[in-house]
Amino acid sequence: MEITLGDLARVLGGQTHGDPSTMLRNARPLSEAEPGDVTFLDHAKNQRNLAGCRASAVVAPAGLSGLELPAVLVADPLKAFIAAVRFFLPEPGPAYPATVDPRASIHPTATLGKNVTIAPFAVVGAGCQIGDGCVLHPGVVLGEDSVLGEECVIHPHAVLYPRTRLGKRVILHAHSVLGADGFGYKLVDGRQQKVPQLGCVELGDDVEIGAGTAVDRATFGHTRIGEGTKIDNLVQVGHNCKIGPHNLIVSQTGIAGSCKTGAFVVIAGQVGLADHIALGDHTQVGAKSGVMRDVPAGEKVLGAPARPEKEAKRILIALERLPEMVKEMRRLKGSGDSSNGGGEGAAE
Amino acid sequence: MEITLGDLARVLGGQTHGDPSTMLRNARPLSEAEPGDVTFLDHAKNQRNLAGCRASAVVAPAGLSGLELPAVLVADPLKAFIAAVRFFLPEPGPAYPATVDPRASIHPTATLGKNVTIAPFAVVGAGCQIGDGCVLHPGVVLGEDSVLGEECVIHPHAVLYPRTRLGKRVILHAHSVLGADGFGYKLVDGRQQKVPQLGCVELGDDVEIGAGTAVDRATFGHTRIGEGTKIDNLVQVGHNCKIGPHNLIVSQTGIAGSCKTGAFVVIAGQVGLADHIALGDHTQVGAKSGVMRDVPAGEKVLGAPARPEKEAKRILIALERLPEMVKEMRRLKGSGDSSNGGGEGAAE
Amino acid sequence: MEITLGDLARVLGGQTHGDPSTMLRNARPLSEAEPGDVTFLDHAKNQRNLAGCRASAVVAPAGLSGLELPAVLVADPLKAFIAAVRFFLPEPGPAYPATVDPRASIHPTATLGKNVTIAPFAVVGAGCQIGDGCVLHPGVVLGEDSVLGEECVIHPHAVLYPRTRLGKRVILHAHSVLGADGFGYKLVDGRQQKVPQLGCVELGDDVEIGAGTAVDRATFGHTRIGEGTKIDNLVQVGHNCKIGPHNLIVSQTGIAGSCKTGAFVVIAGQVGLADHIALGDHTQVGAKSGVMRDVPAGEKVLGAPARPEKEAKRILIALERLPEMVKEMRRLKGSGDSSNGGGEGAAE
Repeated sequence: MEITLGDLARVLGGQTHGDPSTMLRNARPLSEAEPGDVTFLDHAKNQRNLAGCRASAVVAPAGLSGLELPAVLVADPLKAFIAAVRFFLPEPGPAYPATVDPRASIHPTATLGKNVTIAPFAVVGAGCQIGDGCVLHPGVVLGEDSVLGEECVIHPHAVLYPRTRLGKRVILHAHSVLGADGFGYKLVDGRQQKVPQLGCVELGDDVEIGAGTAVDRATFGHTRIGEGTKIDNLVQVGHNCKIGPHNLIVSQTGIAGSCKTGAFVVIAGQVGLADHIALGDHTQVGAKSGVMRDVPAGEKVLGAPARPEKEAKRILIALERLPEMVKEMRRLKGSGDSSNGGGEGAAE
Repeated sequence: MEITLGDLARVLGGQTHGDPSTMLRNARPLSEAEPGDVTFLDHAKNQRNLAGCRASAVVAPAGLSGLELPAVLVADPLKAFIAAVRFFLPEPGPAYPATVDPRASIHPTATLGKNVTIAPFAVVGAGCQIGDGCVLHPGVVLGEDSVLGEECVIHPHAVLYPRTRLGKRVILHAHSVLGADGFGYKLVDGRQQKVPQLGCVELGDDVEIGAGTAVDRATFGHTRIGEGTKIDNLVQVGHNCKIGPHNLIVSQTGIAGSCKTGAFVVIAGQVGLADHIALGDHTQVGAKSGVMRDVPAGEKVLGAPARPEKEAKRILIALERLPEMVKEMRRLKGSGDSSNGGGEGAAE
Repeated sequence: MEITLGDLARVLGGQTHGDPSTMLRNARPLSEAEPGDVTFLDHAKNQRNLAGCRASAVVAPAGLSGLELPAVLVADPLKAFIAAVRFFLPEPGPAYPATVDPRASIHPTATLGKNVTIAPFAVVGAGCQIGDGCVLHPGVVLGEDSVLGEECVIHPHAVLYPRTRLGKRVILHAHSVLGADGFGYKLVDGRQQKVPQLGCVELGDDVEIGAGTAVDRATFGHTRIGEGTKIDNLVQVGHNCKIGPHNLIVSQTGIAGSCKTGAFVVIAGQVGLADHIALGDHTQVGAKSGVMRDVPAGEKVLGAPARPEKEAKRILIALERLPEMVKEMRRLKGSGDSSNGGGEGAAE
């Protein structure tokens, strides 16, 4: 696949800078670009990153000046570069024909929508309902009475325990687990007795769940993930949580049981939430924080235990001074003792 | 399924409060209850949570006064409500007939007990022994010479590497991994050389392992999890660990190699234990702690590095005062300098 | 299997200490050794650990004096003991015959090298290339156009998304996931819009990846893991990372997007790296650290935020004194106020 810079500019809806006859054969990011490639610059402020770039052309923000490389100038370089990559990327054939592989195990009481794809070794339990256009990759397991909305994509080996419900266009990555038992025990006569976990998990439309992430079923009722929320890899969501819509929850975060989050909450990586915590709309939690108290809407928190970001940063800055303060304190005690002629110092 | 309050009270072994003819059609937790539902109140102290409740009745602690809702009063509301939920929950048909699916791969040298269920695409290796009443869900993989006691339930895609041994009534959740190689390397001639991991993993009776949790095989001998211990999702247990009986280990905790824990140890979420740490009986480790030293029996520790809880809390409280102390120290140095007419200050 | 001490010494290339006719029937580590066993002592400094040992003999470092037990004395006890364990360990039959199980799903356009083993229910996508001597355990999924070098071992249920490339002798443990989508979204009109993840994952020769670990595909180009690098269980490697050669990355560490590491980097457990961080050659990061800035070659860092180890330790030591300092500060303020007759104190 080859294209001239001028033709690529037309495909991407941008303006040509430099020689429009420059031939391009691939689209690669700055760190990997070779002669013959078009690469991309996300923001004008990063223009210095083009120094030493081996690409033959660049997709760059409109209005950029001083460009030495031939370029396609566009309003949204990321969006345009995605289109360029897709132009050069050999179109994959369908991973599976849009049909049901005979080696999948599908219970006769399950109902499948139109244009459903089911790969080898997927298992669809009794009473499941699968919406139009869903794709189940190899080894996916749908427990009994699970329901999938339209156009869900379930990557290899994702597991839904019984009675899980997914909205439309949900994406589950490999090895995600929805609906395993919540961690509930009572110590009775010297043994940890299991509290039955009788609820289930429900995901709204457009939710995406990362690889290896686990969302536990509710003790009773539902563990819920709100519409449009995106959860990264290896996250734990405990039983009975109600995660709000349009949240971003980054990798390795752990949310204990019965937490609630509002809309547009952002939780960075490796955060922990104690049980029964509520985060208000638009709250943000910094990486590695341990949240022990509710956070009001709009607040940013940080640290373990988590505090308003400003306070947490003041403590972190003060910590850098701490070793020096210990020394100063010793000096002060010494000088204080000598200047006040005894008192507290002499009493010890 | 419908039942009157009076009849439900008889089923649950409790006392009726209010109109015994109240009709009930479902059992849901407070946050989800609708008219026609029975809900439940765990403790008298949470009685205010009933305000605004839409349920038609409540399972509540015996002796509670001032209840407006019709109720079933019982000694153990959680236990009674579990029974109520099960009463209304449509009895699931068996997930799989109590038999061995012909699409499972079972080595001819494996031995199966009575009433064993093996789902499609499960793999049972050479020499495995499976006790009576075990259930292997889809995609479970038992490595060669693994042994399962009676009535184990192995959820989808759980993997046992060769020679793993499970006691009776063990529950493994989806994607748990027992017996992967421990993380052991020696740097030889500029390369990380793998130390062979020749041991295995052994779990006692009534152990439960969460989704995505990994327990590594021993270098030599056994990595052991004691009887009755419950481990949450996404936990890491390193090679050669000896975890004691009746422990609770919460999600995303990481236990490095060769650690030992006593009986009834409780480790909260996202904790890390350095290698070769020993925790005594009944020790408790607070969330996100990093344990660098052995902990004597009965002690509670907290923080990173972990300290006795009381010390750790004193430090956390003092930390809140730290930014103010930095300012005070500046003032004191200033006032100290002026009051003692130089000395240490003038020497700088 | 039985052997005399004298014969075992010949097998291991060591010297006999004590009665060479001592009969040995098994090799077990110190904590599990019984009469009839040979055990091992790794270093002379741990000689006291032999007190109370029930083994009949020990593999011990050459030059050790004062040994009561019969022994085989060798230069490298660990290496010799591994050989001893393997001598007694019943040789497992091959897990699978060196052939392709008819229940695996192999696309007709895939190409297989010589002596490839493919277990039941493995899935090999269109266009995959599998090198000589590779072993795919049950349930392994290779996405389209994936390429495996010679002698890779892929444990059960490991998943490669399309276009993943592995070098030679790569080991992937159960449930590892290579190539899931990176966590990239843009908030557009109140919804988190997915940034397509069009790149892939590439692993060098001799890489080992732990159970449940996830390495995300690049947005464009490649997420790379360098030759000889070993990654433990439940680690997250974000999109676009370039991990260098011969690194050791311990369990539950999370590396955010676009990080780079040099050669021989060691990252302990539960560490977090912010995005775009660079770690120089031979850097070491202590357990639970949160790395927010680049680390120059050869440096050891610790803490959250991570600092040079020496600074971090000074802060940790000072922290232990902090509660006492708060008290001292109060006393000093009191004594300072009285000695300088008011001033700042009186002004409040």
